[in-house]
Amino acid sequence: MLINIERLRENIYELAKFSDTTKGITRISFTETYNNGINFVRKLMADAGLTTKMDSVGNLIGRLESKNRGKKAIIIGSHIDTVPNGGMFDGTLGVLGGIEVIKVLTENGYKNNHPLEVISFINEEGSAHSLIGGTFGSGAMMGLLDINNIDFEENLKKVNLSEKDTNLGYRKPNTIKNYLELHIEQGRKLYDEKVPIGIVTGIVGIWRFIATVRGKSNHAGTTPMYARDDALLKSLPLIQGVNDVVNELGKGLVGTVGKINVNPGAANVIPGEVELTIEIRGLEVEIGNKAINKIYELIKKIGDTELKQIETKDPSLMDKNVQLQIEKACQYKNINYKYLPSGAGHDAREVAKKASSGLIFIPSKDGLSHVPEEFTNFKYIQNGVNVLLDTVKLLDIE
Amino acid sequence: MLINIERLRENIYELAKFSDTTKGITRISFTETYNNGINFVRKLMADAGLTTKMDSVGNLIGRLESKNRGKKAIIIGSHIDTVPNGGMFDGTLGVLGGIEVIKVLTENGYKNNHPLEVISFINEEGSAHSLIGGTFGSGAMMGLLDINNIDFEENLKKVNLSEKDTNLGYRKPNTIKNYLELHIEQGRKLYDEKVPIGIVTGIVGIWRFIATVRGKSNHAGTTPMYARDDALLKSLPLIQGVNDVVNELGKGLVGTVGKINVNPGAANVIPGEVELTIEIRGLEVEIGNKAINKIYELIKKIGDTELKQIETKDPSLMDKNVQLQIEKACQYKNINYKYLPSGAGHDAREVAKKASSGLIFIPSKDGLSHVPEEFTNFKYIQNGVNVLLDTVKLLDIE
Repeated sequence: MLINIERLRENIYELAKFSDTTKGITRISFTETYNNGINFVRKLMADAGLTTKMDSVGNLIGRLESKNRGKKAIIIGSHIDTVPNGGMFDGTLGVLGGIEVIKVLTENGYKNNHPLEVISFINEEGSAHSLIGGTFGSGAMMGLLDINNIDFEENLKKVNLSEKDTNLGYRKPNTIKNYLELHIEQGRKLYDEKVPIGIVTGIVGIWRFIATVRGKSNHAGTTPMYARDDALLKSLPLIQGVNDVVNELGKGLVGTVGKINVNPGAANVIPGEVELTIEIRGLEVEIGNKAINKIYELIKKIGDTELKQIETKDPSLMDKNVQLQIEKACQYKNINYKYLPSGAGHDAREVAKKASSGLIFIPSKDGLSHVPEEFTNFKYIQNGVNVLLDTVKLLDIE
Repeated sequence: MLINIERLRENIYELAKFSDTTKGITRISFTETYNNGINFVRKLMADAGLTTKMDSVGNLIGRLESKNRGKKAIIIGSHIDTVPNGGMFDGTLGVLGGIEVIKVLTENGYKNNHPLEVISFINEEGSAHSLIGGTFGSGAMMGLLDINNIDFEENLKKVNLSEKDTNLGYRKPNTIKNYLELHIEQGRKLYDEKVPIGIVTGIVGIWRFIATVRGKSNHAGTTPMYARDDALLKSLPLIQGVNDVVNELGKGLVGTVGKINVNPGAANVIPGEVELTIEIRGLEVEIGNKAINKIYELIKKIGDTELKQIETKDPSLMDKNVQLQIEKACQYKNINYKYLPSGAGHDAREVAKKASSGLIFIPSKDGLSHVPEEFTNFKYIQNGVNVLLDTVKLLDIE
């Protein structure tokens, strides 16, 4: 059994028309354009034989019942929302690829042992104007939303939702046998090594901080060098240190200072305060904590510096058995593959925390994503969706 | 002959009432509040016996003719405009102190040999909403305005001026015997060392640059450390280098990186480009150039970096003889003094480029200026204005 890449290609280009910009795709959750896109997807689901419904937060769920109604479902999911001026594959591929899998199965008269579902989660990108965060739809379904977020209710209201809606969106994890997601890598490992399939071992944890380094602002002309307490100069060992610490610890750990604000920030004033972001990502909590401890030591040495943790996302590991079934599917179709972690977050991160999940990557051209130039060769897409199809079948006979 | 500090104090507090804010003084040139302040000063000038006129750009000039009408004038000048939420002494002191000097001289029946003038220059701070630059009034009078400034005419129009007005404001330098300015130090040398008078040797030159360091922006989660080209990390040796270079060269040179922009500037994106300001100040052009050459070498080593000079203000030296006369005045009144350069710009910088000038500093509490807390003890003010008085008398007999 093989998927129909021409049909899938057409659907991808059709959905790309639902965009608020001509430069890249802009399809932000909770907008009219997004809703129009979802209606298009809903029709495709129905056409593939799925019964569709929208849950209380806006996740679109298509379901194909099995002869064994009591059984747990196998879900294929992802999202069709984008960042502003994003690409046409990120997320979209997982949803439309999932629908193609169901379409092929029903066309071929496949009798599914488990209920099969395709879910298009809302606001994975978190680009909605309301500050309700990314992986919102999958987080709500898994009961993992950070409702302690300040102004969470206020922010929900802006997209016509209430806390009651998010509670109603919850789904018992024991209704799910497996969750599968097909996604572009958004990195360049597969692309550089020309490996068509990545079997994701886990999604890295994210630890995000704001460091505030304090000095003393003063006139840059009248303050002699010996009398200065320049916050920017003081922050240099911290910026360099973040880089050194993650390189030293290795194990795929990455660390980034991506944003820096200097106050007051004028050419003729000595920096009085520097605020910068520190982000550490890694698959192992223990190594992540080691890095954070070393950064705290650094800060102590620098002095006059405060470190505030603003975000923690625990690593989320994919199910070993699902990884194995993806591998089998690759071997069956004679497609090359490699195991790798995911540095970016996905809906699979949320679902995997509660239910057995697998994430399949295909290459992104030049490692690019979230930009209009985002592209994946349709040969790679064909391979990916065929592996997804066979993985569903392998999991279905368990 | 001694000045009347009580009268001067009262005038300073009266002028401070002309402010658009209660937090500090906000008296921006070309505003109604500024004009009201100028009218108050004009009355004080007339009361001291000066004949007043406003020149074509808004400089207020008070003149006391001498018996020798053909002689060159001795001018006391400064400004009464402020930065937003600035202090009540910066500039004001020089203008009101100058008027006090004339008042005392006329009260005592002094027969001046040279015409004496007090000038309140407009827009020294350059805080006017129009981008016509600082030391505007003195620059116009000395024919030193940078009329090649983009949109200069457009900007002039915004304050109801034309290029014709700036041309009409020009004054032949050979009408000036000496220019004197009394100003708070705006630094902490005199205050820390408890020296009541600073005799300024010169006003430092300013060389200002924007450096652009280019790397490659990428996803901070999916890009491994070895594959990064982080523009912020690349810029660290430059920021540190500016500091090292000026410390190494010494001679009062200062160097500052006061502003930095990281693009795109998000916690989860590797910096693709860093733009930062580099400002070097020093009294010796040769040493300044040495520093700049060393910074060019640094940038070559870093690579992918561009350096663009955005401003050059040549050092401006005070006249040796005027410095000597100020010293004599200090000795005569038995007031301690020291020679020092000025790190900040003043109207004296512009005038000194064309005419024999002197600049007298008195301490600023804690070295602060341009803030509501700006303060100078009235004992110091009394000393300063008495030295100004005696310097005028010494120059007048030459």
